[in-house]
Amino acid sequence: MSTTVGQVIRCKAAVAWEAGKPLVMEEVEVAPPQKMEVRVKILFTSLCHTDVYFWEAKGQNPVFPRILGHEAGGIVESVGEGVTELVPGDHVLPVFTGECKECAHCKSEESNMCDLLRINTDRGVMIHDGKSRFSKDGKPIYHFVGTSTFSEYTVVHVGCLAKINPLAPLDKVCVLSCGISTGFGATVNVAKPLKGSTVAVFGLGAVGLAAAEGARVSGASRIIGVDLNPNRFGQAKQFGVTEYVNPKDYNKPVQEVIAEMTDGGVDRAIECTGHIDAMISAFECVHDGWGVAVLVGVPHKDAVFKTHPMNFLNERTLKGTFFGNYKPRSDIPGVVEKYMNKELELEKFITHQVPFSEINKAFDYMLKGESIRCIIRMEH
Amino acid sequence: MSTTVGQVIRCKAAVAWEAGKPLVMEEVEVAPPQKMEVRVKILFTSLCHTDVYFWEAKGQNPVFPRILGHEAGGIVESVGEGVTELVPGDHVLPVFTGECKECAHCKSEESNMCDLLRINTDRGVMIHDGKSRFSKDGKPIYHFVGTSTFSEYTVVHVGCLAKINPLAPLDKVCVLSCGISTGFGATVNVAKPLKGSTVAVFGLGAVGLAAAEGARVSGASRIIGVDLNPNRFGQAKQFGVTEYVNPKDYNKPVQEVIAEMTDGGVDRAIECTGHIDAMISAFECVHDGWGVAVLVGVPHKDAVFKTHPMNFLNERTLKGTFFGNYKPRSDIPGVVEKYMNKELELEKFITHQVPFSEINKAFDYMLKGESIRCIIRMEH
Repeated sequence: MSTTVGQVIRCKAAVAWEAGKPLVMEEVEVAPPQKMEVRVKILFTSLCHTDVYFWEAKGQNPVFPRILGHEAGGIVESVGEGVTELVPGDHVLPVFTGECKECAHCKSEESNMCDLLRINTDRGVMIHDGKSRFSKDGKPIYHFVGTSTFSEYTVVHVGCLAKINPLAPLDKVCVLSCGISTGFGATVNVAKPLKGSTVAVFGLGAVGLAAAEGARVSGASRIIGVDLNPNRFGQAKQFGVTEYVNPKDYNKPVQEVIAEMTDGGVDRAIECTGHIDAMISAFECVHDGWGVAVLVGVPHKDAVFKTHPMNFLNERTLKGTFFGNYKPRSDIPGVVEKYMNKELELEKFITHQVPFSEINKAFDYMLKGESIRCIIRMEH
Repeated sequence: MSTTVGQVIRCKAAVAWEAGKPLVMEEVEVAPPQKMEVRVKILFTSLCHTDVYFWEAKGQNPVFPRILGHEAGGIVESVGEGVTELVPGDHVLPVFTGECKECAHCKSEESNMCDLLRINTDRGVMIHDGKSRFSKDGKPIYHFVGTSTFSEYTVVHVGCLAKINPLAPLDKVCVLSCGISTGFGATVNVAKPLKGSTVAVFGLGAVGLAAAEGARVSGASRIIGVDLNPNRFGQAKQFGVTEYVNPKDYNKPVQEVIAEMTDGGVDRAIECTGHIDAMISAFECVHDGWGVAVLVGVPHKDAVFKTHPMNFLNERTLKGTFFGNYKPRSDIPGVVEKYMNKELELEKFITHQVPFSEINKAFDYMLKGESIRCIIRMEH
């Protein structure tokens, strides 16, 4: 690796030139890491809905050309000034949000919403100098959430890299960069179901299935999956889901259906769709006296959460979570260890694999709803 | 006392004959306690807003004639069949909600909303036989929330009586029957501010002041009182309130004012007014990442809580509480001990005292906003 340190690296990247158009494999230039930055050789990456969402760019500011990708595993190639925690050869997971270890959030035991490195989907440049490290023919290509893992090499702020056990298989643990940790952490860190309790999970995509996995690992006695797509139930059983409710099958609110199934409500509910109606249902389906609902799915910017305040007064709790309340650097290495110790299963989330050259297939699988996670193998 | 056991007792009671009219001191008959009931000689009672609310009967089902009153201290006169935990002479605080120790709520460590004995403001009779124990001239006078303490003797379900230290002065600890425990518990049991944290309290009536007292005892560094009445701030300082915000003084939402005062929001907020706008402000004024808002005040039946769901996603928590999450029988004796150990001050809540014959003065003091608590001395 010593030959590349301090040099621009030319490598392959899948570039999103415009909204909704297939990524194009390009040779790009990746500048050396600057102050507090790390250049990472990506070995495996996977595709998450958030990549698709910003690729489609239907609601947000379009930032193109851009290198998407934020779930990945790689190896440190070189480090910039001031980086002392990582050295070339370290195995890392890039994370779309960070941990500066200096701000009020990082110092709080309860928060993981770092002031400096909190997710910023509009920013396409590095914090240090407001510039991109990617270019082609001298023109910048923008970053995505500080990770841009759809490239053989990328540059990431050191605060957005979790240093993990080098024995962990990167083609598996790369999925802990985002969705799986988000859902699993929502359950085990925030909802915290007691052993034997009942848990409802709204949305049986990757995040919801990870939430169910968290409930299974916690010893929940019943895990009720709620989804509008009945095809998802078969798969969900592998993640511990014991019952399935399709809101379309009833002519009353699904919270009432669940309350009837559970003698007044579930002990915990985890909302992973981001739809406002599901958020309200998830809250209203928890039992009075002790029920806790956790919001994970990101809502529409104009959504309004509405409920009767007596639903709170009757001792229900509603909380939101971001990245499963994990602090990326402090906590994610431990989640990798959970996988290594077989306390958490990851293989079942990985339904597809493609070589990097076929990355657009991963988009197809996700858009058709066929995949949970599709691993994209880089071909260094 | 043995002369009255098993007999009807004739005694004085302040009867509400109709909505909003002064109580009338009457001689009433109090039947002996039936199965799982206890007859209590009341020594001190105090007046709470909830008494006034059901006396005014502007929103609810009018249930008259009725004996109001639910904050009190007394001594067991006799017990009915099946009562084994209490004997004549025990000192007790009647509580408007109960603890059967058998239902799912009582068995849950997290809930105090007993299925059997949860507050029921419409019921004017005893659970055992659906009858009142009070009568005058052979006609029933209805009970109120299972306590009816505006009487020299009352009959209460054993599950609604906290047996307390007989050394505790009943003229002080009687206020722990309802409002003070509600506010204090909301802070110490539910909001749980860390030492050094910032706390906002909405509403500086008795419950809000008790919430502030909880924050003071917890070591909060700043306690921001929010009230529309500026006269309340002077008094509130005694309860640890360090700053005062009157929403009327600003032309922007009070949650923005508080966020500016506290670099992004308070660590904890406790809402004690029941007004929906205050509920929303209390939630939205807590800091992202770790803020917790607790709803205590009872809302209007048509109120709707509305907020942008991102306020939750940014790791804020909203919970409601009922009677400060205390289980009446299990926990209230311990709160009395806190007073005995000087960990909780009660004297400052007691601003007025009247003899039972002047009970209507206590209503005047409260309606004029002059009193926090007015102790009513029975005159056996």
